[in-house]
Amino acid sequence: MMEKIDSYECFVEPFHVDFTGRVFMGVLGNHLLNAAGKHSTRRGWGIGALNETQHTWVLSRLSIELYDMPRQYEHFEVKTWVEGVMKLFTNRNFAILRPDGSAYGYARSVWAMIDLETRRPCDLLSLYDGDICRYVVTDEENDCPIAGHGRFRFREPELVRTIDTYYSDVDINGHINSIKYIEHILDLFPKERFKSQSIERFEIAYKAESHLGDRLSFYTQPVSADEVDVEVRKNEAEVVCQAKIRFRTATI
Amino acid sequence: MMEKIDSYECFVEPFHVDFTGRVFMGVLGNHLLNAAGKHSTRRGWGIGALNETQHTWVLSRLSIELYDMPRQYEHFEVKTWVEGVMKLFTNRNFAILRPDGSAYGYARSVWAMIDLETRRPCDLLSLYDGDICRYVVTDEENDCPIAGHGRFRFREPELVRTIDTYYSDVDINGHINSIKYIEHILDLFPKERFKSQSIERFEIAYKAESHLGDRLSFYTQPVSADEVDVEVRKNEAEVVCQAKIRFRTATI
Repeated sequence: MMEKIDSYECFVEPFHVDFTGRVFMGVLGNHLLNAAGKHSTRRGWGIGALNETQHTWVLSRLSIELYDMPRQYEHFEVKTWVEGVMKLFTNRNFAILRPDGSAYGYARSVWAMIDLETRRPCDLLSLYDGDICRYVVTDEENDCPIAGHGRFRFREPELVRTIDTYYSDVDINGHINSIKYIEHILDLFPKERFKSQSIERFEIAYKAESHLGDRLSFYTQPVSADEVDVEVRKNEAEVVCQAKIRFRTATI
Repeated sequence: MMEKIDSYECFVEPFHVDFTGRVFMGVLGNHLLNAAGKHSTRRGWGIGALNETQHTWVLSRLSIELYDMPRQYEHFEVKTWVEGVMKLFTNRNFAILRPDGSAYGYARSVWAMIDLETRRPCDLLSLYDGDICRYVVTDEENDCPIAGHGRFRFREPELVRTIDTYYSDVDINGHINSIKYIEHILDLFPKERFKSQSIERFEIAYKAESHLGDRLSFYTQPVSADEVDVEVRKNEAEVVCQAKIRFRTATI
Protein backbone atom coordinates (compact mmCIF):
# COMPACT_ATOMS: atom_id res chain seq x y z
CA MET A 1 0.00 0.00 0.00
CA MET A 2 1.19 3.50 -0.85
CA GLU A 3 2.61 5.56 2.00
CA LYS A 4 0.49 8.52 3.06
CA ILE A 5 3.00 11.34 3.41
CA ASP A 6 5.01 12.71 0.50
CA SER A 7 7.98 15.01 0.63
CA TYR A 8 9.10 17.55 -2.01
CA GLU A 9 12.42 19.37 -2.25
CA CYS A 10 12.25 23.14 -2.73
CA PHE A 11 14.86 25.82 -3.30
CA VAL A 12 14.65 29.58 -2.71
CA GLU A 13 15.47 31.30 -6.00
CA PRO A 14 16.93 34.84 -6.06
CA PHE A 15 13.87 36.44 -7.68
CA HIS A 16 11.60 34.77 -5.13
CA VAL A 17 12.79 36.68 -2.08
CA ASP A 18 11.72 40.04 -0.71
CA PHE A 19 14.02 42.93 0.13
CA THR A 20 14.92 41.29 3.45
CA GLY A 21 16.08 38.13 1.67
CA ARG A 22 13.15 36.00 2.90
CA VAL A 23 11.02 33.98 0.47
CA PHE A 24 7.78 35.77 -0.51
CA MET A 25 4.71 34.29 1.22
CA GLY A 26 3.06 33.91 -2.21
CA VAL A 27 5.99 31.87 -3.49
CA LEU A 28 5.87 29.67 -0.38
CA GLY A 29 2.12 29.23 -0.93
CA ASN A 30 2.83 28.20 -4.51
CA HIS A 31 5.27 25.52 -3.27
CA LEU A 32 2.56 24.20 -0.92
CA LEU A 33 -0.07 24.06 -3.68
CA ASN A 34 2.39 22.32 -6.02
CA ALA A 35 3.08 19.73 -3.31
CA ALA A 36 -0.67 19.24 -2.84
CA GLY A 37 -1.12 18.77 -6.59
CA LYS A 38 1.66 16.20 -6.87
CA HIS A 39 0.54 14.31 -3.76
CA SER A 40 -3.03 13.99 -5.02
CA THR A 41 -1.95 13.17 -8.59
CA ARG A 42 0.22 10.27 -7.35
CA ARG A 43 -2.87 8.80 -5.71
CA GLY A 44 -5.19 9.17 -8.68
CA TRP A 45 -6.86 12.29 -7.25
CA GLY A 46 -5.08 14.89 -9.39
CA ILE A 47 -6.95 17.51 -11.37
CA GLY A 48 -6.23 15.72 -14.65
CA ALA A 49 -7.86 12.48 -13.53
CA LEU A 50 -10.75 14.34 -11.89
CA ASN A 51 -11.49 16.34 -15.03
CA GLU A 52 -12.31 13.09 -16.81
CA THR A 53 -15.30 12.66 -14.52
CA GLN A 54 -16.12 16.39 -14.57
CA HIS A 55 -14.75 17.14 -11.10
CA THR A 56 -12.12 19.48 -9.76
CA TRP A 57 -10.58 20.63 -6.48
CA VAL A 58 -11.33 24.07 -5.11
CA LEU A 59 -9.09 25.58 -2.42
CA SER A 60 -11.20 26.99 0.38
CA ARG A 61 -8.77 27.81 3.22
CA LEU A 62 -5.02 28.10 3.62
CA SER A 63 -3.27 28.97 6.90
CA ILE A 64 0.51 29.14 7.13
CA GLU A 65 2.37 29.65 10.41
CA LEU A 66 6.12 30.14 10.51
CA TYR A 67 8.78 30.27 13.21
CA ASP A 68 11.23 31.43 10.57
CA MET A 69 11.19 31.99 6.82
CA PRO A 70 13.45 30.25 4.26
CA ARG A 71 16.02 32.66 2.81
CA GLN A 72 17.65 33.13 -0.58
CA TYR A 73 19.51 30.03 -1.85
CA GLU A 74 18.27 27.85 1.05
CA HIS A 75 16.89 24.40 0.43
CA PHE A 76 13.80 23.23 2.24
CA GLU A 77 11.35 20.38 2.14
CA VAL A 78 7.55 20.41 2.00
CA LYS A 79 5.80 17.39 3.47
CA THR A 80 2.09 17.00 2.87
CA TRP A 81 -0.67 14.59 3.81
CA VAL A 82 -4.44 14.30 4.19
CA GLU A 83 -5.53 14.91 7.78
CA GLY A 84 -9.15 14.00 7.33
CA VAL A 85 -12.11 13.74 4.99
CA MET A 86 -15.63 14.99 5.62
CA LYS A 87 -18.59 14.81 3.29
CA LEU A 88 -17.93 18.15 1.57
CA PHE A 89 -14.38 19.04 2.57
CA THR A 90 -10.98 17.51 3.05
CA ASN A 91 -8.21 18.84 5.27
CA ARG A 92 -4.65 18.72 3.97
CA ASN A 93 -1.68 19.65 6.16
CA PHE A 94 1.90 20.61 5.43
CA ALA A 95 5.25 20.75 7.22
CA ILE A 96 7.94 23.13 5.94
CA LEU A 97 11.27 21.71 7.07
CA ARG A 98 14.98 22.52 6.98
CA PRO A 99 17.39 19.91 5.59
CA ASP A 100 18.12 18.88 9.22
CA GLY A 101 14.42 18.14 9.76
CA SER A 102 13.70 21.11 12.03
CA ALA A 103 10.62 23.14 11.16
CA TYR A 104 10.38 26.53 9.49
CA GLY A 105 6.67 26.13 10.08
CA TYR A 106 3.46 24.33 9.19
CA ALA A 107 0.32 24.90 7.17
CA ARG A 108 -3.28 23.74 7.02
CA SER A 109 -5.64 23.78 4.05
CA VAL A 110 -9.26 22.93 3.28
CA TRP A 111 -10.42 21.77 -0.13
CA ALA A 112 -13.83 21.07 -1.65
CA MET A 113 -14.53 18.92 -4.66
CA ILE A 114 -16.94 20.43 -7.17
CA ASP A 115 -18.79 19.13 -10.19
CA LEU A 116 -17.54 21.08 -13.21
CA GLU A 117 -21.00 21.18 -14.81
CA THR A 118 -23.09 22.28 -11.86
CA ARG A 119 -20.25 24.01 -9.90
CA ARG A 120 -21.83 22.35 -6.83
CA PRO A 121 -19.84 20.52 -4.12
CA CYS A 122 -19.65 16.73 -4.29
CA ASP A 123 -19.79 14.07 -1.60
CA LEU A 124 -16.14 13.12 -1.11
CA LEU A 125 -17.02 10.07 0.97
CA SER A 126 -18.92 8.40 -1.86
CA LEU A 127 -16.86 9.59 -4.85
CA TYR A 128 -14.83 6.70 -6.30
CA ASP A 129 -16.26 4.48 -3.53
CA GLY A 130 -14.60 6.52 -0.79
CA ASP A 131 -11.11 5.78 -2.12
CA ILE A 132 -9.80 9.03 -0.60
CA CYS A 133 -10.29 7.68 2.94
CA ARG A 134 -7.40 5.26 2.31
CA TYR A 135 -5.00 8.20 2.39
CA VAL A 136 -5.99 9.73 5.71
CA VAL A 137 -3.08 9.60 8.16
CA THR A 138 -3.20 8.35 11.75
CA ASP A 139 -3.26 10.79 14.66
CA GLU A 140 0.42 10.04 15.33
CA GLU A 141 1.40 10.86 11.76
CA ASN A 142 -0.58 14.12 11.75
CA ASP A 143 2.20 16.33 13.09
CA CYS A 144 0.89 19.86 12.48
CA PRO A 145 1.16 21.80 15.76
CA ILE A 146 -0.51 25.05 14.69
CA ALA A 147 -4.00 26.40 15.39
CA GLY A 148 -6.87 25.63 13.05
CA HIS A 149 -8.40 28.18 10.71
CA GLY A 150 -9.83 31.17 12.54
CA ARG A 151 -13.06 33.09 12.10
CA PHE A 152 -13.46 36.47 10.48
CA ARG A 153 -15.73 39.14 11.93
CA PHE A 154 -15.70 42.28 9.86
CA ARG A 155 -17.51 45.20 11.41
CA GLU A 156 -16.58 48.43 9.67
CA PRO A 157 -13.39 47.68 7.79
CA GLU A 158 -11.68 50.59 6.04
CA LEU A 159 -11.30 50.69 2.25
CA VAL A 160 -7.57 51.15 1.68
CA ARG A 161 -7.00 50.34 -2.01
CA THR A 162 -8.81 49.45 -5.20
CA ILE A 163 -6.95 47.83 -8.10
CA ASP A 164 -7.74 46.64 -11.58
CA THR A 165 -6.83 43.09 -12.54
CA TYR A 166 -4.79 42.23 -15.61
CA TYR A 167 -3.31 39.44 -17.70
CA SER A 168 -0.68 38.43 -15.10
CA ASP A 169 -3.31 37.99 -12.39
CA VAL A 170 -5.23 35.12 -13.93
CA ASP A 171 -4.66 31.39 -14.15
CA ILE A 172 -5.51 28.83 -16.81
CA ASN A 173 -9.17 28.92 -15.75
CA GLY A 174 -9.38 32.67 -16.25
CA HIS A 175 -9.73 33.24 -12.50
CA ILE A 176 -7.56 35.58 -10.43
CA ASN A 177 -5.13 33.02 -9.08
CA SER A 178 -4.95 32.06 -5.41
CA ILE A 179 -1.34 33.19 -5.12
CA LYS A 180 -1.95 36.63 -6.65
CA TYR A 181 -4.45 37.45 -3.89
CA ILE A 182 -1.70 36.79 -1.35
CA GLU A 183 0.65 39.17 -3.19
CA HIS A 184 -1.94 41.94 -3.51
CA ILE A 185 -2.89 41.61 0.16
CA LEU A 186 0.71 41.83 1.39
CA ASP A 187 1.28 44.81 -0.93
CA LEU A 188 -1.10 46.74 1.34
CA PHE A 189 1.60 46.94 4.01
CA PRO A 190 4.37 49.54 3.92
CA LYS A 191 8.05 48.68 3.57
CA GLU A 192 8.67 49.63 7.21
CA ARG A 193 6.46 46.77 8.41
CA PHE A 194 8.59 44.16 6.66
CA LYS A 195 11.82 45.85 7.76
CA SER A 196 11.05 45.47 11.44
CA GLN A 197 8.69 42.49 11.42
CA SER A 198 8.18 39.15 9.71
CA ILE A 199 4.95 37.28 9.07
CA GLU A 200 4.17 34.84 11.85
CA ARG A 201 0.86 33.60 10.46
CA PHE A 202 -1.01 34.16 7.21
CA GLU A 203 -4.57 32.87 6.80
CA ILE A 204 -6.79 33.18 3.77
CA ALA A 205 -10.36 32.06 3.08
CA TYR A 206 -11.40 31.91 -0.57
CA LYS A 207 -15.08 32.79 -0.92
CA ALA A 208 -15.82 33.41 -4.60
CA GLU A 209 -14.03 33.56 -7.94
CA SER A 210 -13.03 36.79 -9.65
CA HIS A 211 -11.99 37.26 -13.25
CA LEU A 212 -9.65 39.29 -15.46
CA GLY A 213 -10.94 42.85 -15.54
CA ASP A 214 -12.73 42.70 -12.18
CA ARG A 215 -11.91 45.59 -9.86
CA LEU A 216 -10.73 44.40 -6.45
CA SER A 217 -11.23 46.52 -3.35
CA PHE A 218 -9.21 45.87 -0.22
CA TYR A 219 -10.66 46.59 3.21
CA THR A 220 -8.57 46.33 6.37
CA GLN A 221 -9.51 46.01 10.00
CA PRO A 222 -6.85 46.05 12.74
CA VAL A 223 -7.23 43.29 15.33
CA SER A 224 -4.23 44.22 17.46
CA ALA A 225 -0.91 46.01 16.99
CA ASP A 226 0.45 42.93 15.23
CA GLU A 227 -2.65 41.52 13.56
CA VAL A 228 -4.75 42.80 10.66
CA ASP A 229 -7.77 41.32 8.90
CA VAL A 230 -8.28 42.04 5.21
CA GLU A 231 -11.42 41.60 3.12
CA VAL A 232 -11.26 41.64 -0.67
CA ARG A 233 -14.41 42.49 -2.62
CA LYS A 234 -14.92 42.49 -6.36
CA ASN A 235 -16.63 45.33 -8.18
CA GLU A 236 -17.66 46.97 -4.88
CA ALA A 237 -19.96 44.08 -4.08
CA GLU A 238 -19.29 40.38 -3.52
CA VAL A 239 -16.61 39.20 -1.07
CA VAL A 240 -13.97 37.13 -2.90
CA CYS A 241 -11.61 36.40 -0.02
CA GLN A 242 -10.69 37.25 3.54
CA ALA A 243 -7.27 37.13 5.13
CA LYS A 244 -5.66 37.48 8.55
CA ILE A 245 -2.02 38.49 8.87
CA ARG A 246 -0.14 38.28 12.15
CA PHE A 247 3.29 39.88 12.34
CA ARG A 248 6.08 39.16 14.77
CA THR A 249 8.93 41.49 15.58
CA ALA A 250 11.87 40.00 13.73
CA THR A 251 14.58 38.51 15.91
CA ILE A 252 17.25 38.69 13.23
CA MET B 1 38.89 22.15 -18.66
CA MET B 2 35.28 22.90 -17.82
CA GLU B 3 32.80 22.69 -20.68
CA LYS B 4 31.36 26.00 -21.81
CA ILE B 5 27.65 25.25 -22.20
CA ASP B 6 25.43 24.25 -19.29
CA SER B 7 21.93 22.85 -19.43
CA TYR B 8 19.16 23.20 -16.83
CA GLU B 9 15.90 21.26 -16.56
CA CYS B 10 12.73 23.31 -16.15
CA PHE B 11 9.09 22.43 -15.60
CA VAL B 12 5.97 24.50 -16.24
CA GLU B 13 4.05 24.70 -12.95
CA PRO B 14 0.26 25.22 -12.94
CA PHE B 15 0.41 28.69 -11.36
CA HIS B 16 3.01 29.78 -13.89
CA VAL B 17 0.79 29.67 -16.98
CA ASP B 18 -1.54 32.28 -18.41
CA PHE B 19 -5.19 31.76 -19.25
CA THR B 20 -4.22 30.11 -22.56
CA GLY B 21 -2.09 27.51 -20.72
CA ARG B 22 1.24 28.96 -21.94
CA VAL B 23 4.03 29.82 -19.49
CA PHE B 24 4.12 33.52 -18.57
CA MET B 25 6.97 35.40 -20.30
CA GLY B 26 8.09 36.68 -16.89
CA VAL B 27 8.37 33.13 -15.56
CA LEU B 28 10.35 32.09 -18.62
CA GLY B 29 12.62 35.11 -18.11
CA ASN B 30 13.12 34.01 -14.50
CA HIS B 31 14.20 30.55 -15.71
CA LEU B 32 16.74 32.19 -18.04
CA LEU B 33 18.16 34.42 -15.30
CA ASN B 34 18.40 31.46 -12.93
CA ALA B 35 20.31 29.51 -15.59
CA ALA B 36 22.63 32.49 -16.09
CA GLY B 37 23.23 32.70 -12.34
CA LYS B 38 24.04 28.99 -11.99
CA HIS B 39 26.26 28.97 -15.08
CA SER B 40 28.33 31.90 -13.85
CA THR B 41 28.46 30.61 -10.27
CA ARG B 42 29.88 27.25 -11.44
CA ARG B 43 32.74 29.15 -13.08
CA GLY B 44 33.56 31.38 -10.13
CA TRP B 45 31.73 34.37 -11.60
CA GLY B 46 28.57 34.19 -9.49
CA ILE B 47 27.23 37.14 -7.56
CA GLY B 48 28.38 35.64 -4.25
CA ALA B 49 32.01 35.42 -5.34
CA LEU B 50 31.87 38.83 -7.02
CA ASN B 51 30.50 40.51 -3.91
CA GLU B 52 33.70 39.58 -2.09
CA THR B 53 35.59 41.93 -4.39
CA GLN B 54 32.80 44.53 -4.41
CA HIS B 55 31.50 43.69 -7.87
CA THR B 56 28.15 42.58 -9.23
CA TRP B 57 26.42 41.79 -12.52
CA VAL B 58 23.81 44.16 -13.94
CA LEU B 59 21.42 42.95 -16.63
CA SER B 60 21.29 45.46 -19.46
CA ARG B 61 19.39 43.75 -22.30
CA LEU B 62 17.23 40.65 -22.69
CA SER B 63 15.63 39.53 -25.98
CA ILE B 64 13.58 36.36 -26.17
CA GLU B 65 12.23 34.97 -29.45
CA LEU B 66 9.91 31.99 -29.53
CA TYR B 67 8.46 29.72 -32.21
CA ASP B 68 6.21 28.21 -29.55
CA MET B 69 5.72 28.61 -25.82
CA PRO B 70 6.05 25.79 -23.23
CA ARG B 71 2.67 24.80 -21.79
CA GLN B 72 1.41 23.67 -18.38
CA TYR B 73 3.13 20.51 -17.07
CA GLU B 74 5.65 20.45 -19.94
CA HIS B 75 9.34 19.90 -19.28
CA PHE B 76 11.91 21.98 -21.09
CA GLU B 77 15.61 22.64 -20.99
CA VAL B 78 17.50 25.93 -20.88
CA LYS B 79 21.02 25.90 -22.31
CA THR B 80 23.21 28.91 -21.73
CA TRP B 81 26.71 30.06 -22.65
CA VAL B 82 28.87 33.17 -23.06
CA GLU B 83 28.92 34.37 -26.65
CA GLY B 84 31.54 37.04 -26.22
CA VAL B 85 33.22 39.49 -23.89
CA MET B 86 33.94 43.15 -24.55
CA LYS B 87 35.55 45.64 -22.24
CA LEU B 88 32.33 46.78 -20.57
CA PHE B 89 29.78 44.13 -21.55
CA THR B 90 29.39 40.43 -21.99
CA ASN B 91 26.86 38.69 -24.22
CA ARG B 92 25.16 35.58 -22.89
CA ASN B 93 22.86 33.47 -25.09
CA PHE B 94 20.21 30.87 -24.34
CA ALA B 95 18.43 28.03 -26.12
CA ILE B 96 15.00 26.93 -24.85
CA LEU B 97 14.55 23.33 -25.93
CA ARG B 98 11.99 20.54 -25.84
CA PRO B 99 12.99 17.15 -24.40
CA ASP B 100 13.54 15.95 -28.01
CA GLY B 101 16.06 18.76 -28.57
CA SER B 102 13.87 20.86 -30.88
CA ALA B 103 13.68 24.55 -30.05
CA TYR B 104 10.86 26.50 -28.43
CA GLY B 105 13.10 29.49 -29.04
CA TYR B 106 16.25 31.36 -28.15
CA ALA B 107 17.33 34.38 -26.15
CA ARG B 108 20.15 36.90 -26.00
CA SER B 109 21.28 39.00 -23.07
CA VAL B 110 23.84 41.69 -22.31
CA TRP B 111 25.41 42.16 -18.88
CA ALA B 112 27.71 44.77 -17.37
CA MET B 113 29.89 44.34 -14.32
CA ILE B 114 29.79 47.19 -11.85
CA ASP B 115 31.82 48.17 -8.83
CA LEU B 116 29.48 48.12 -5.83
CA GLU B 117 31.10 51.16 -4.25
CA THR B 118 31.24 53.49 -7.22
CA ARG B 119 28.33 51.88 -9.20
CA ARG B 120 30.58 52.37 -12.25
CA PRO B 121 31.19 49.71 -14.93
CA CYS B 122 34.36 47.62 -14.70
CA ASP B 123 36.75 46.37 -17.35
CA LEU B 124 35.74 42.73 -17.81
CA LEU B 125 38.84 41.92 -19.85
CA SER B 126 41.20 42.76 -17.01
CA LEU B 127 39.13 41.61 -14.03
CA TYR B 128 40.57 38.41 -12.51
CA ASP B 129 43.24 38.47 -15.25
CA GLY B 130 40.67 38.06 -18.03
CA ASP B 131 39.52 34.68 -16.66
CA ILE B 132 36.07 35.19 -18.23
CA CYS B 133 37.52 34.85 -21.75
CA ARG B 134 38.14 31.15 -21.08
CA TYR B 135 34.38 30.59 -21.17
CA VAL B 136 33.60 32.17 -24.53
CA VAL B 137 32.26 29.56 -26.97
CA THR B 138 33.44 28.99 -30.53
CA ASP B 139 31.38 30.24 -33.47
CA GLU B 140 30.18 26.69 -34.11
CA GLU B 141 28.94 26.30 -30.54
CA ASN B 142 27.13 29.66 -30.59
CA ASP B 143 23.82 28.35 -31.94
CA CYS B 144 21.44 31.27 -31.40
CA PRO B 145 19.66 31.98 -34.70
CA ILE B 146 17.70 35.09 -33.69
CA ALA B 147 18.28 38.76 -34.42
CA GLY B 148 20.39 40.88 -32.09
CA HIS B 149 18.94 43.52 -29.78
CA GLY B 150 17.10 46.25 -31.67
CA ARG B 151 17.07 50.00 -31.27
CA PHE B 152 14.34 52.08 -29.71
CA ARG B 153 13.20 55.37 -31.19
CA PHE B 154 10.45 56.95 -29.15
CA ARG B 155 8.84 59.98 -30.76
CA GLU B 156 5.59 60.82 -29.06
CA PRO B 157 4.60 57.72 -27.15
CA GLU B 158 1.22 57.71 -25.45
CA LEU B 159 0.90 57.49 -21.66
CA VAL B 160 -1.39 54.51 -21.07
CA ARG B 161 -0.98 53.65 -17.38
CA THR B 162 0.66 54.80 -14.16
CA ILE B 163 1.10 52.43 -11.23
CA ASP B 164 2.50 52.55 -7.75
CA THR B 165 5.09 49.98 -6.73
CA TYR B 166 4.78 47.83 -3.66
CA TYR B 167 6.43 45.17 -1.50
CA SER B 168 5.99 42.35 -4.09
CA ASP B 169 7.71 44.37 -6.80
CA VAL B 170 11.15 44.59 -5.24
CA ASP B 171 14.09 42.21 -4.96
CA ILE B 172 16.71 41.68 -2.27
CA ASN B 173 18.49 44.90 -3.36
CA GLY B 174 15.35 46.96 -2.91
CA HIS B 175 15.06 47.52 -6.68
CA ILE B 176 11.96 46.79 -8.74
CA ASN B 177 12.96 43.37 -10.06
CA SER B 178 13.71 42.70 -13.72
CA ILE B 179 10.91 40.16 -13.99
CA LYS B 180 8.24 42.43 -12.52
CA TYR B 181 8.82 44.98 -15.28
CA ILE B 182 8.03 42.24 -17.81
CA GLU B 183 4.77 41.43 -15.97
CA HIS B 184 3.68 45.06 -15.71
CA ILE B 185 4.47 45.68 -19.40
CA LEU B 186 2.48 42.66 -20.60
CA ASP B 187 -0.39 43.70 -18.31
CA LEU B 188 -0.85 46.71 -20.62
CA PHE B 189 -2.37 44.44 -23.28
CA PRO B 190 -6.00 43.36 -23.20
CA LYS B 191 -7.13 39.76 -22.82
CA GLU B 192 -8.21 39.66 -26.46
CA ARG B 193 -4.63 40.12 -27.64
CA PHE B 194 -3.47 36.96 -25.84
CA LYS B 195 -6.56 35.04 -26.93
CA SER B 196 -5.80 35.44 -30.62
CA GLN B 197 -2.03 35.98 -30.58
CA SER B 198 1.09 34.76 -28.83
CA ILE B 199 4.34 36.60 -28.19
CA GLU B 200 6.86 36.01 -30.95
CA ARG B 201 9.57 38.26 -29.56
CA PHE B 202 10.01 40.21 -26.33
CA GLU B 203 12.91 42.63 -25.92
CA ILE B 204 13.74 44.74 -22.93
CA ALA B 205 16.51 47.27 -22.24
CA TYR B 206 17.12 48.13 -18.59
CA LYS B 207 18.25 51.75 -18.28
CA ALA B 208 18.02 52.74 -14.61
CA GLU B 209 16.98 51.34 -11.26
CA SER B 210 13.67 52.12 -9.58
CA HIS B 211 12.72 51.51 -5.98
CA LEU B 212 9.78 50.53 -3.79
CA GLY B 213 7.37 53.45 -3.76
CA ASP B 214 8.41 54.88 -7.14
CA ARG B 215 5.52 55.58 -9.48
CA LEU B 216 5.98 53.93 -12.86
CA SER B 217 4.42 55.40 -15.99
CA PHE B 218 3.99 53.28 -19.11
CA TYR B 219 4.12 54.86 -22.56
CA THR B 220 3.33 52.88 -25.70
CA GLN B 221 4.10 53.49 -29.35
CA PRO B 222 2.74 51.18 -32.06
CA VAL B 223 5.35 50.08 -34.60
CA SER B 224 3.05 47.93 -36.73
CA ALA B 225 -0.18 45.98 -36.25
CA ASP B 226 1.79 43.26 -34.46
CA GLU B 227 4.54 45.25 -32.77
CA VAL B 228 4.48 47.74 -29.92
CA ASP B 229 7.27 49.64 -28.15
CA VAL B 230 6.87 50.48 -24.47
CA GLU B 231 8.81 52.98 -22.42
CA VAL B 232 8.67 52.93 -18.61
CA ARG B 233 9.52 56.09 -16.70
CA LYS B 234 9.73 56.58 -12.96
CA ASN B 235 8.13 59.50 -11.18
CA GLU B 236 7.26 61.18 -14.51
CA ALA B 237 10.92 61.71 -15.28
CA GLU B 238 13.77 59.26 -15.80
CA VAL B 239 13.46 56.31 -18.22
CA VAL B 240 13.89 53.01 -16.35
CA CYS B 241 13.38 50.56 -19.20
CA GLN B 242 12.20 50.17 -22.77
CA ALA B 243 10.60 47.13 -24.34
CA LYS B 244 9.51 45.87 -27.74
CA ILE B 245 6.80 43.23 -28.05
CA ARG B 246 6.05 41.47 -31.32
CA PHE B 247 2.96 39.31 -31.50
CA ARG B 248 2.17 36.50 -33.90
CA THR B 249 -1.26 35.22 -34.74
CA ALA B 250 -1.48 31.95 -32.86
CA THR B 251 -1.55 28.84 -35.00
CA ILE B 252 -3.09 26.68 -32.29
